[in-house]
Amino acid sequence: MSKSANNSLLLHLVTDRSLSLGRSLVEVVQEAVAGGVTCVQLREKDCSTRQFLQEAELLKKLLRPLGVPLIINDRVDIALAIGADGVHLGQSDMPICHARRLLGPGCLIGISAESLDHALEAEQQGADYIGISPVFSTPTKTDTAPALGLDGLRLIRERVQIPLVGIGGINLTNASQVIAAGADGVAVVSAIMAAESPRQAAEAIRRELE
Amino acid sequence: MSKSANNSLLLHLVTDRSLSLGRSLVEVVQEAVAGGVTCVQLREKDCSTRQFLQEAELLKKLLRPLGVPLIINDRVDIALAIGADGVHLGQSDMPICHARRLLGPGCLIGISAESLDHALEAEQQGADYIGISPVFSTPTKTDTAPALGLDGLRLIRERVQIPLVGIGGINLTNASQVIAAGADGVAVVSAIMAAESPRQAAEAIRRELE
Repeated sequence: MSKSANNSLLLHLVTDRSLSLGRSLVEVVQEAVAGGVTCVQLREKDCSTRQFLQEAELLKKLLRPLGVPLIINDRVDIALAIGADGVHLGQSDMPICHARRLLGPGCLIGISAESLDHALEAEQQGADYIGISPVFSTPTKTDTAPALGLDGLRLIRERVQIPLVGIGGINLTNASQVIAAGADGVAVVSAIMAAESPRQAAEAIRRELE
Repeated sequence: MSKSANNSLLLHLVTDRSLSLGRSLVEVVQEAVAGGVTCVQLREKDCSTRQFLQEAELLKKLLRPLGVPLIINDRVDIALAIGADGVHLGQSDMPICHARRLLGPGCLIGISAESLDHALEAEQQGADYIGISPVFSTPTKTDTAPALGLDGLRLIRERVQIPLVGIGGINLTNASQVIAAGADGVAVVSAIMAAESPRQAAEAIRRELE
């Protein structure tokens, strides 16, 4: 993916295997992409490095021919090993200065920002996009900061030039409000991962966004 | 460290913060090195990437001027970020082919082998040393394979040319037997980490080894 292809940020799927209703990650992702997901972030918090690498390789094999970028959460080594399109780093992950040096200028680096200060810092340090987290309160992550809300997102939009992706509690009913408040895209977890039909769920959200 | 400096494998300290009796890792490691530890492996299983990186940076600052190699357990990204001397990879960590490509030929790669087959494979794939794990049964790791024993170690020694480091249940009373059975070094966790004086504990084991 070209780093300038910001429309690929429009609808992120962030994976969470615990929500996949027993389906494999590849199966859910394949459906979700068929439904209009433009970017996939592989997030694994409770598996070995080798399992993480294997999942990443499977997703890369699926997504690369479709031109859908694959972004790895947290683990720069996994991203390097498989040649992922990018990494997404939280405030407890590797600082961007190290990550950029290891990954090079061609790799997307997204940073989770839980405040305006985080967002300004990430932009200044060379992030390619910022994940505004959480926009709404969310059941799928328990360690998050208080919700920023649409007003918090608007405030950050006024001060930050690089693309913003909203995450946290985003679903069919509120996705378009997040875009209206200034985000370039939304990232969705349970609204697609846990849907009976990830494809239909993605299609519906994608329609809302356009 | 030069990769040929195999005597640095003689007495590894493998860290485990949960055993450090409230002391900082830097404090325990500093004492242990003063007592004769020749190599330090930083193992962190329950902290964020950023915390792991910070611990690794602190240890590197301590160890580099002393010429004591720092080896990072599992995380190739941490090793790359701080410029560690090596990584130690288990059978559930990144496969050596990926790790070598990312780390280059100058970086030590140690592989944990729980059987002769693992050891032969690691040697064939270009490992710099093999951790024979566990030699004895151990309370500090709960997910290990059955103990190989001194006989298992001897068997591997007969078939494998690269350096072997015994790990698992090794302490003052049995360290010299591990060397006598053919190991080039021993790796110690609780016998140093949990000692009232890590320095004296390291000194005593080091004397046994020489």
